[in-house]
Amino acid sequence: MSTIQRDIIVREVGLRDGLQIHPTFMPTADKLAWIKNEALSGVSEIEVTSFVPPKLIPQFADATEVCAGALQLKDLVVSALIPNLKGAQRGLELGVNKLNYVVSVSKTHNLKNVRRERDASMADFKAIVDLIKTLPEDQRPLIGAGLSTALGCSYEGKVALTEVVLCAEQLLDAGADEIVVCDTVGYADPALVRAVLKAVLAVAGDVPVAAHFHDTRGTGLANVTAALECGIKYFDASLGGLGGCPFAPGASGNIVMEDLCFMLDSMGLKTGVNLDLLLKTRQTMSESLSDLKLHGALARAGLPHGFVSNWSAVAA
Amino acid sequence: MSTIQRDIIVREVGLRDGLQIHPTFMPTADKLAWIKNEALSGVSEIEVTSFVPPKLIPQFADATEVCAGALQLKDLVVSALIPNLKGAQRGLELGVNKLNYVVSVSKTHNLKNVRRERDASMADFKAIVDLIKTLPEDQRPLIGAGLSTALGCSYEGKVALTEVVLCAEQLLDAGADEIVVCDTVGYADPALVRAVLKAVLAVAGDVPVAAHFHDTRGTGLANVTAALECGIKYFDASLGGLGGCPFAPGASGNIVMEDLCFMLDSMGLKTGVNLDLLLKTRQTMSESLSDLKLHGALARAGLPHGFVSNWSAVAA
Repeated sequence: MSTIQRDIIVREVGLRDGLQIHPTFMPTADKLAWIKNEALSGVSEIEVTSFVPPKLIPQFADATEVCAGALQLKDLVVSALIPNLKGAQRGLELGVNKLNYVVSVSKTHNLKNVRRERDASMADFKAIVDLIKTLPEDQRPLIGAGLSTALGCSYEGKVALTEVVLCAEQLLDAGADEIVVCDTVGYADPALVRAVLKAVLAVAGDVPVAAHFHDTRGTGLANVTAALECGIKYFDASLGGLGGCPFAPGASGNIVMEDLCFMLDSMGLKTGVNLDLLLKTRQTMSESLSDLKLHGALARAGLPHGFVSNWSAVAA
Repeated sequence: MSTIQRDIIVREVGLRDGLQIHPTFMPTADKLAWIKNEALSGVSEIEVTSFVPPKLIPQFADATEVCAGALQLKDLVVSALIPNLKGAQRGLELGVNKLNYVVSVSKTHNLKNVRRERDASMADFKAIVDLIKTLPEDQRPLIGAGLSTALGCSYEGKVALTEVVLCAEQLLDAGADEIVVCDTVGYADPALVRAVLKAVLAVAGDVPVAAHFHDTRGTGLANVTAALECGIKYFDASLGGLGGCPFAPGASGNIVMEDLCFMLDSMGLKTGVNLDLLLKTRQTMSESLSDLKLHGALARAGLPHGFVSNWSAVAA
């Protein structure tokens, strides 16, 4: 078993958050190649699909095959988005390592996004945790809880910090293994990030807090910088910034995985990611998405002259 | 006279740093429209041109007309890049408010960029300051001193912090009114920015220290975030991220003015810049540069729902 030292854990979410708004179906084999290559480059956790009904999002019609393929890979945490209890059941059946659930702090956004009141989503989360607890302890997947629109909402605008903390507490009380603070629509700035993360960290105790930023308005890595200062060690990103915003054509999506890893590595933080392999993975992935414009600066500019990576892999 | 309260001073450098690598001549009237519109949007300092010989960079053949036109505008600090003593003489003759001189910390870069040893560039700077001092005190322009490649060099790679501090001290001793720490090739990360800025601030005393970042590898606004923590209040940027890197086709140039102003404004920092007017200025400017791809996220995504600007103008 290889032991890779990591100061920061980066998690790929492009196969879910990126592909979900992409109308062209990405062949299952291409998805699995992307997952495999990125895992080999050192990314240790990948959200590989979503268990939404294929009627709603045909992109995820191959969720079963993608999960099964990804679970073959050694040392990879395979996660999947679960929209509801039914999705959780599928995740358990497939043996996915981690289930990611999302509630919008903004009540309007929650209603528009999942057609349920926020309280109903919270109750559903409790039912999901209870379902997981029916399994023997050593067979339970981790359950992550995302606070969508925690940093702003495209319907409500500013979101009250008290509401963010209230939602975090409800998810923690229900038994979340991780809280993910999400800037779903790319409204955040570093000052807001500091305020929200400090408040969530204060109630999270020993439960890890992750950050999920979008680069819609260019502030993605600035927000990462603020989050790092707060002590955040888990960041979601997507290769090539895959994603975008359905309300803003051409706008960026999730923060760009390769730019994030480059910045962290430059700062002397070990990510476990080999940047050369990651850039090759991006290249291969982009070839199967030739109708899609990728984002990201590193892929265009290349690594700095004389760049020495902090990447380290220690065979143990 | 209008008094605009500003926490942060943003300075437009696209007319110089952006246009200098653009092979198509931008008509003088379009340059002046850009300057006027951006000044009206609230940007208080604009580097309008460079006094390099038109034989070297034909884009600046209209330096005299551009300076004369810009100097008509009320409340605008008109600056120009001066490559040498001769450029300084031209700046004095034209009555430019501020002269910007640049020395590369990297000796190799200095040699390649201005075909002189770094020591010779330092001696030239001293001569320029002496020339300025021949004017009566109330007629002297400000003289800014840029530390090019202070955060990395495309020839030498990493640049020693001791060399950055040595150069800063030499420029301060010679009489610089401002030190500009420049990430000329976009190699910086927030940790390096903190280290370099703290060291330069420690020797600068009361002399203002500004930051000039490029977004070549996506870390531009992250570096601004780190610089803000260090107390930096002066930032260079270019509208639409105009610029790019001659060595990396398609790569970004200076940090994007409108994204910078949006981030600062979101953070509750007053820039004095009206974002709507700034975006309109970008639109008009882009029409006269239709052969050029602009960068920037805000222009694509638009302002957040319910965004309230901290912009304030107080007529006094």
